[in-house]
Amino acid sequence: MSGFNSDYELYELGTIQLQRGGTIPNAVLAYKTYGQLNDTKSNVIIYPTWFTGFIENNEWLIGEGMALDPSKYFIIVVCAFGNSQSSSPSNTKDLFAGPNFPQVTLYDNVFYQHKFITEKFDIKKIKLVVGWSMGAQQTYQWASLYPEMVERIAPMCGSAKTAIHNWVFLQSVKTALKLDFNYLSGYYTEQPVNGLKAVANVYAGWGFSQQFYNQELYKNLGFNTVEDFISGFWEKFFLQRDANNLLCMLDTWQNADISDNPIYKNDLIKALNSIKAKTYVIPAEKDLYFTPDVSAWEVSNIPNAELFIVPGDWGHFAVDGLNPVDTFYVDNLLKQLLDIQV
Amino acid sequence: MSGFNSDYELYELGTIQLQRGGTIPNAVLAYKTYGQLNDTKSNVIIYPTWFTGFIENNEWLIGEGMALDPSKYFIIVVCAFGNSQSSSPSNTKDLFAGPNFPQVTLYDNVFYQHKFITEKFDIKKIKLVVGWSMGAQQTYQWASLYPEMVERIAPMCGSAKTAIHNWVFLQSVKTALKLDFNYLSGYYTEQPVNGLKAVANVYAGWGFSQQFYNQELYKNLGFNTVEDFISGFWEKFFLQRDANNLLCMLDTWQNADISDNPIYKNDLIKALNSIKAKTYVIPAEKDLYFTPDVSAWEVSNIPNAELFIVPGDWGHFAVDGLNPVDTFYVDNLLKQLLDIQV
Repeated sequence: MSGFNSDYELYELGTIQLQRGGTIPNAVLAYKTYGQLNDTKSNVIIYPTWFTGFIENNEWLIGEGMALDPSKYFIIVVCAFGNSQSSSPSNTKDLFAGPNFPQVTLYDNVFYQHKFITEKFDIKKIKLVVGWSMGAQQTYQWASLYPEMVERIAPMCGSAKTAIHNWVFLQSVKTALKLDFNYLSGYYTEQPVNGLKAVANVYAGWGFSQQFYNQELYKNLGFNTVEDFISGFWEKFFLQRDANNLLCMLDTWQNADISDNPIYKNDLIKALNSIKAKTYVIPAEKDLYFTPDVSAWEVSNIPNAELFIVPGDWGHFAVDGLNPVDTFYVDNLLKQLLDIQV
Repeated sequence: MSGFNSDYELYELGTIQLQRGGTIPNAVLAYKTYGQLNDTKSNVIIYPTWFTGFIENNEWLIGEGMALDPSKYFIIVVCAFGNSQSSSPSNTKDLFAGPNFPQVTLYDNVFYQHKFITEKFDIKKIKLVVGWSMGAQQTYQWASLYPEMVERIAPMCGSAKTAIHNWVFLQSVKTALKLDFNYLSGYYTEQPVNGLKAVANVYAGWGFSQQFYNQELYKNLGFNTVEDFISGFWEKFFLQRDANNLLCMLDTWQNADISDNPIYKNDLIKALNSIKAKTYVIPAEKDLYFTPDVSAWEVSNIPNAELFIVPGDWGHFAVDGLNPVDTFYVDNLLKQLLDIQV
């Protein structure tokens, strides 16, 4: 349960204190870099992972000729706590293992990512922070916590604060997972398979739009029937995850708010106003939980922001590298953003 | 678990055969009438119940001065099989009780409702069939099975065939319910409370729109927080239901298709084309499972149909009597439809 491969590095943070009072002993951030840091350290792109995302799940957007081109940029994919590669319930030992892993916030993730890249690479400017979904939430947090450092951001299908409806959807995911008798309050020795399948079934309805299903677009992904798609895509996906890790990240997501910290004291508009980065906010037209109307509101409160809505029927998963048309659209936006002088 | 009150009547169908091959011994349809059947029997309105709906849950749309006015019309609220008042897993004895209750289809429901009203009241013309949600699906089925009999229909927030995405949402509801250890494959002696709560949590995200939650419109219903709304509205709602009844109706809903019968042989367009009734199709703008685009397609295939979209943020539950503005809108449409000469 630590990603599909082990081709990544760990940055040792030591024992860290968390925003809500918890501690992670011998905490690590997992990361992987692509390309070379140039002499002026002016070609840095930070690309955090999403809910359940492994490092390798970010790679669809990286490549020669693409916006995130390793021949030009030094791209750091860094993992959120709980993703199974960075410190997580599944890889933490003894006292804080499994269900005893402490509560981690959006602020914690970005605070320690900042510590990592400044200590490890002595980076002072970031050309771009980009992320999808919970990665987009980290993107907003980066720009509001370190406005002098972050030159451009591209939050894709995310929000600066988790909307109430999004919270409700996530609550249903948690409820379904915990209902499995074999979850055992987190003290399972084998994964609660039926709970993970229930998570998959709930998530299935939200991840893609109504029109995606009704037009049978899952056939483009090689599934002939909706039943095959649920088992072969969704259940397979969640059966590769650890239940406590999912719950850790769900908690981070449900409580995500870039203003929930001592700097902005829950003043979300102030936190958005503080962003100095040139900002491309990129929701997907039919995303059912990070809805474009929320993105539009955020754009109206960020000084130098523009809204670009990915058109089409793929919903939240428009920006996951599954649909070539959407990938082309997003990649072009990122190229455009990277070309803007700031 | 048989509705909030027992103020209704039963029509005894005897032992009935069902479309999929099953049998219900001593089957009953529960119903309640409002107003008087006139001498020419020309003032009949049929108003079937929805998924989980009891008779009394339909009454918000009935009243003097409203479109469904008992001083003018003879209104028959008739219950779908599985609703706990008509024959259901919970009220069937012995061999076909609980999890052994046979599979019931949309066709079965309407076929036996037709048998009931013709045998009991000798009704030959129906002025209007109206229903919400799964009640709208029965409404479509009425008009396509008995085109010479049904003069007007108003399917509200429903569809003639359950869309694939809607099926996915319902599959997640079923999966969550069955995951409860106390469900015991349907052989429970006490309701699987945690499974019903999980159903409530999943349903919560779908029943109202994203904007309903994000604008905290649940405060209009007397709930101060979203947590209160989930427990006080959704969990309370589903804890009053029987698990096997829910599964019976979910199956009916997932497989609903007005053309799935010997007459239309799964030719949905033919079934829609056959409808002779003056038709007002009334989806809600932000309904997340009976989406207006599907309604628009249905309208384009029904000879004498018009589309009216209930505007606003209440999603599917716009047409459940909770929001006075939406109720006023719907009631006016029904008045308009009833005034049209056919």
